[in-house]
Amino acid sequence: MAKFMDVHDGFVGVTQQQLEEAHQRDLDNERAEGVHFERAWLDPESGKVFCLSSGPSKEAVARVHEASGHPTTQIYELPVEVS
Amino acid sequence: MAKFMDVHDGFVGVTQQQLEEAHQRDLDNERAEGVHFERAWLDPESGKVFCLSSGPSKEAVARVHEASGHPTTQIYELPVEVS
Repeated sequence: MAKFMDVHDGFVGVTQQQLEEAHQRDLDNERAEGVHFERAWLDPESGKVFCLSSGPSKEAVARVHEASGHPTTQIYELPVEVS
Repeated sequence: MAKFMDVHDGFVGVTQQQLEEAHQRDLDNERAEGVHFERAWLDPESGKVFCLSSGPSKEAVARVHEASGHPTTQIYELPVEVS
């Protein structure tokens, strides 16, 4: 199981509730792909969303987001992490 | 206290140890700015690093990274978060 960060553009002015709804669609669709979306963060000023997930591949992450209606090609695998 | 994600490019082929050293420099420099770097994730293939922090402003986050020798202009404030 690998970890991934993906980035979305265009979420300018999106609210907490709208992000929750978008995230819920990912949670509804993720099981079919063996993915889990752990957290998502939004900057409504720039419209950037960052999603942290775990799963089998970038392609699986991409398919979940696509099924949820917010596709992205900016998906990065994260084999190195510090805290 | 706000939350921030910042993004760095150019870390292609960087190792766990090198990321730990870079993160340690941030931890050494952050107190002066009232910032805390919580986690950082690296994709050594694309060279992207994502840093999650809390602090008073984007400018404070930028100053810590600059003092640590890895400046970035890609800093996003994150008032909205879901999990």
